[in-house]
Amino acid sequence: MTAIDPVDLTARLVRCPSVTPEEGGALVLLEAELSAAGFECTRVDRNGTSNLYARWGRKGANRTFGFNGHTDVVPVGDLDAWTVDPFGAEVKNGFMYGRGTTDMKSGVAAFAAAAIDFVRQTPPDGSIALAITGDEEGDAEDGTTALLDWMAAEGEAMSVCLVGEPTCPNEMGEMMKIGRRGSLTAWFTVIGVQGHAAYPHRANNPMPAMARLMDRLSSHELDQGTEHFDASTLAVVTIDTGNAATNVIPAQSRATVNIRYNDLHSGQSLTEWLQAEADKVAAEFGLQVQMKVKVSGESFITPPGELSDLIAKSVEAETGRKPVLSTSGGTSDARFVKNHCPVVEFGLVGKTMHQVDERVAVEQIGQLKSIYTRILTDYFG
Amino acid sequence: MTAIDPVDLTARLVRCPSVTPEEGGALVLLEAELSAAGFECTRVDRNGTSNLYARWGRKGANRTFGFNGHTDVVPVGDLDAWTVDPFGAEVKNGFMYGRGTTDMKSGVAAFAAAAIDFVRQTPPDGSIALAITGDEEGDAEDGTTALLDWMAAEGEAMSVCLVGEPTCPNEMGEMMKIGRRGSLTAWFTVIGVQGHAAYPHRANNPMPAMARLMDRLSSHELDQGTEHFDASTLAVVTIDTGNAATNVIPAQSRATVNIRYNDLHSGQSLTEWLQAEADKVAAEFGLQVQMKVKVSGESFITPPGELSDLIAKSVEAETGRKPVLSTSGGTSDARFVKNHCPVVEFGLVGKTMHQVDERVAVEQIGQLKSIYTRILTDYFG
Repeated sequence: MTAIDPVDLTARLVRCPSVTPEEGGALVLLEAELSAAGFECTRVDRNGTSNLYARWGRKGANRTFGFNGHTDVVPVGDLDAWTVDPFGAEVKNGFMYGRGTTDMKSGVAAFAAAAIDFVRQTPPDGSIALAITGDEEGDAEDGTTALLDWMAAEGEAMSVCLVGEPTCPNEMGEMMKIGRRGSLTAWFTVIGVQGHAAYPHRANNPMPAMARLMDRLSSHELDQGTEHFDASTLAVVTIDTGNAATNVIPAQSRATVNIRYNDLHSGQSLTEWLQAEADKVAAEFGLQVQMKVKVSGESFITPPGELSDLIAKSVEAETGRKPVLSTSGGTSDARFVKNHCPVVEFGLVGKTMHQVDERVAVEQIGQLKSIYTRILTDYFG
Repeated sequence: MTAIDPVDLTARLVRCPSVTPEEGGALVLLEAELSAAGFECTRVDRNGTSNLYARWGRKGANRTFGFNGHTDVVPVGDLDAWTVDPFGAEVKNGFMYGRGTTDMKSGVAAFAAAAIDFVRQTPPDGSIALAITGDEEGDAEDGTTALLDWMAAEGEAMSVCLVGEPTCPNEMGEMMKIGRRGSLTAWFTVIGVQGHAAYPHRANNPMPAMARLMDRLSSHELDQGTEHFDASTLAVVTIDTGNAATNVIPAQSRATVNIRYNDLHSGQSLTEWLQAEADKVAAEFGLQVQMKVKVSGESFITPPGELSDLIAKSVEAETGRKPVLSTSGGTSDARFVKNHCPVVEFGLVGKTMHQVDERVAVEQIGQLKSIYTRILTDYFG
């Protein structure tokens, strides 16, 4: 049996136009490859979102190694700005070009190829589970969450899970992720009393209160970071009023604030703090401050230990680099998986993800398969 | 000949949707009424702005009493917040509702009605001139200025001028204006570096600098007032960014500030102060702050004397109140007229001007016509 070429598999996946929420043939292709290798495959579609669960070995095995990833990709954006066909998987100067080459069809191809070859060559005493979603880039409400819900209902479980998202900023192997910061967005509306700019005492201008509130929030130091996390950050991303008349004091003004927070905070503790600041300004200026909050993911961490050691050792053996255990960056589906089992993330260099002319160094795809293979070998060894 | 009902004339003017720069039919209506009464009418339109000049009596008369006012109105704002049609002129519980009912279609209706009835009943030894503009609320570059330019070129002149803007804060007759504060508008743009909200250290968010600058400006006390002037005021009228993405730090943000200032300041001194504050914030946050300033009128005063005595006497005779000689409030076109002849301002209660549900006490419209009539009688008596 010939080994699966992860570069070829990546190219075939890139040629599937799976822009969220389109399946685009990507999961169908993976299902065919995995089934042929003896994986039991189930499509776990929910509300129009396509997902694939594939298990080799017995359900309920003592040790089940899990992989998680996604085949959907973000839109192409400005097609004219691309120098290649975004779904062509063209290779030039050692790089494969196309939407999803880094984020993250190469990751999925690498772990699928590693898993298939591994079970064919050295059938392990345990199981391997692949949970692959078609919606990570969109709302992600019926993606990995749907897979995890279905798995719980069916008695399917992973002992540990590796998410194959790109994690390396510049060099292959330099970073893995053991957690993620939380993300919270708050929308504020300061409501005053409209009036003529020449008679400010007859109006109640919301702008000074808005400026004071945003100044206080943005100059507040949330923390200085923790053992495994960078300092939490707060960004005022917009203030809008829409008052075109220079002689009119506006009735209200709106602002949006985004917080990326570490394990010293929770969505609730931050909501309480923001509410207290809003109330303080409302009282100081004698007007109303409304606030709406959405927590898109709490911060979490899989403390350094057995799983991270296993990954780090394999990465170092294959690349010569000892990966930093990081919690930086945005959210990923690890935020869902962490409720079920220990989870870490490791993948290749993600520099061009979501960009025009997204590309991956072809060499890294092979390296990534080797790393994943070594991880499986060590895990079941 | 029936007397002109100023309430009916106000209602007809309010029903003309003359939001700056739209003429809306208001000047056409006035021209028809004034022409019918023997006024020589000329439309003095310039660069798309509509203006009306109407004179009864001989050009170059020894004594010409002038009235100045505007028929344009500020935008409706939040239409849903109105309890009536803003252009309906609906009367409820003694109040007429609508945009422009106080600012200042009632004033224009009152002086037009007074002038028409006066020349019909007691043709004076002298002339009456009405200079009515369709752009006082906007840039005012081709409004009363255009009328005054045209008058100078044509040999038209006013011996004295009464501007019919609302001048009374709460009670009819309590205040007239003998000068005005200056007005300056400044537009700020804070220019940072765009980036991802999860990586604020790679961006330079303009929002904190904007919030700090606006907080500083709006909490600064400019002065505590002078002999004839109230304290200067500063209003942040808008901050706008237009960033819809909660995970993106915007590249720039814009704000507008309006200052109404007394004789302790000039456009130049304030521009220097604003520039210094902008520079300070730019240095503190390491980004660029651009500023553009427009002075729409320096502060001025017509010292108490013959004209103010004439107006005050008539106001007291009709209302029982001795009007305070004030310089409070915003700019008005008196700032242009004062370069040509002595000018004072007297009108009704302006409490709701520029607000939602703007309204005028119907009784005050009749009172205002009576006051204007008495002023004409005394002036030519």
